[in-house]
Amino acid sequence: MSLSEFEIIQRFFTRSGGRTALQSGTRLGVGDDAALLAVPPGCELVAAIDTLVAAHHFLPDAAPRAIGHRALAVNLSDLAAMGATPAWALLALTLPQADEAWLSEFSTGWFELADCHGVDLVGGDTTRGPLTISVQILGTVEQGTALRRSGGRAGDCIVVTGNLGDAGAGLAIARGAHGHAIATASLAAIDELRSRFEYPVPRVGFGRAARGIASAAMDLSDGLAGDLPKLAQASGLAAHIEVERLPLSAALLSFASLPQAREWALSAGDDYELLMTVPRSRYQQLHDLAAGFGLRLTRIGELRAGGGVTWSMDGADIRVAAAGFDHFR
Amino acid sequence: MSLSEFEIIQRFFTRSGGRTALQSGTRLGVGDDAALLAVPPGCELVAAIDTLVAAHHFLPDAAPRAIGHRALAVNLSDLAAMGATPAWALLALTLPQADEAWLSEFSTGWFELADCHGVDLVGGDTTRGPLTISVQILGTVEQGTALRRSGGRAGDCIVVTGNLGDAGAGLAIARGAHGHAIATASLAAIDELRSRFEYPVPRVGFGRAARGIASAAMDLSDGLAGDLPKLAQASGLAAHIEVERLPLSAALLSFASLPQAREWALSAGDDYELLMTVPRSRYQQLHDLAAGFGLRLTRIGELRAGGGVTWSMDGADIRVAAAGFDHFR
Repeated sequence: MSLSEFEIIQRFFTRSGGRTALQSGTRLGVGDDAALLAVPPGCELVAAIDTLVAAHHFLPDAAPRAIGHRALAVNLSDLAAMGATPAWALLALTLPQADEAWLSEFSTGWFELADCHGVDLVGGDTTRGPLTISVQILGTVEQGTALRRSGGRAGDCIVVTGNLGDAGAGLAIARGAHGHAIATASLAAIDELRSRFEYPVPRVGFGRAARGIASAAMDLSDGLAGDLPKLAQASGLAAHIEVERLPLSAALLSFASLPQAREWALSAGDDYELLMTVPRSRYQQLHDLAAGFGLRLTRIGELRAGGGVTWSMDGADIRVAAAGFDHFR
Repeated sequence: MSLSEFEIIQRFFTRSGGRTALQSGTRLGVGDDAALLAVPPGCELVAAIDTLVAAHHFLPDAAPRAIGHRALAVNLSDLAAMGATPAWALLALTLPQADEAWLSEFSTGWFELADCHGVDLVGGDTTRGPLTISVQILGTVEQGTALRRSGGRAGDCIVVTGNLGDAGAGLAIARGAHGHAIATASLAAIDELRSRFEYPVPRVGFGRAARGIASAAMDLSDGLAGDLPKLAQASGLAAHIEVERLPLSAALLSFASLPQAREWALSAGDDYELLMTVPRSRYQQLHDLAAGFGLRLTRIGELRAGGGVTWSMDGADIRVAAAGFDHFR
């Protein structure tokens, strides 16, 4: 507890030049009252904020490196859903105490991911209090090209990147639940699922590339059952999902029963995959584009005239009870 | 506790059109994965983040309306210090529970101030946890005109807007301390001091107008003794302050002894006045400009060659012990 706020910023959150090329648009970074940033001509600014609260968004004993990664990843995922290019971040870090080992690991996790996406840390605020991390992410997108939730049309395919439910299994593993399943699944599968929860990979490159092909997009943070209704409502349409089509990983299927895997895929949240809609005629193009990013893209349903979300399994309508994660229910 | 996250945003943080003109640059506000914003051609983006933690940055029993005002005000003050024009804000609100009365009052305090400055709330995140409020403020400034901490030159006057120390007294009053002083000071003075702590007024208009005249600027959040060294260091110079020149309000002097008033003025923080440097030849111009905003502007010292900050009182060097507010000391 001998570190001052200034020392925390200097030691853990100031990069000496050279480790990564700075965003060419950063005119003034950390160290003044505010950052000065240049948005390229012809681009719109894209801005989002996301907060992680200890014990609500990560486990109390989570590795600080994973928390640093996650705090940035969930924000990058918001930009990915807009098709934007990340550029800058501001970090508001509330800590019970200034623990050097914790800060070192946290900043390692942060910068590992920031470097992948060329994100400059240009400002922040360090305060004392219960562990809470708010990240403001800023990016840019060529004018008029951003993907919105509202762009879907009746007849569009509903697609999703990657696999769903892995993070739900990973959380159960991190919590030490499902001991029997852990005993029977392979160590590699366990590691993969846990990593999918702890180190979510924002689909930034694919989100950007999907502009002009996908009609609408959002990221899956609260689970398909919680998030899809928002996209359907924003597009003024109904959505229908064929639950047997939900993409499930081999690791998940080696760890959990099919019903449990599907429940996590529908409701567990934290997958940070992209949910998109795409005109039927362009589905194959989007699918092939995803493959270029090493990403599975699966058609799981369609948008229809009307409102609300319906679900079926092997042709029979089913009810999906879980409303997705809501921080206030 | 029956409100969902969606209902909180809908009921308390979504403005029906008409109450204020939206920023013309807001292309897409609350309701998608991120906001889409247009920075005017020829302008740089100005970005800052500030966090308020319950019991650290406001009293546990503080009025929620005051908290809503303060959360935005401290961020607007950062933009004022850059000479920027505020445009947009994102609000990350972590709440122990969804209390309707609290939310209603908080949002009232927020929007009262936001409307004064034409600030659009374009995004946010509502999570459950210990009461913590992070605000991301975004503004714009014509390219190359922002006020920086680093622009001071040897011989420049050091000046400050308004009065110092009022907020320190206001905090003592809010805490119920200084009962004897409260009994002897006028009710109007008590109200004024308390209001100066609870409803700080960011000097946005004057900050913007001071561009091209002031050589450097920062806002006073942690107290002069804590903040001035940062400006001096950024400018690569020493600073000298004549403590007898510190501007003290009539309300403060009716409430506290002169030594106590000066101690608050130096070290209490929370005043959110602007600290600036200005070439000697332009001091009068800046002073008259401040008067146009109804603001006192007081010359309190000067920048000198060298480093560090020195203090004198009536010609004799004195030591100022308080290092200003640091969240981690």
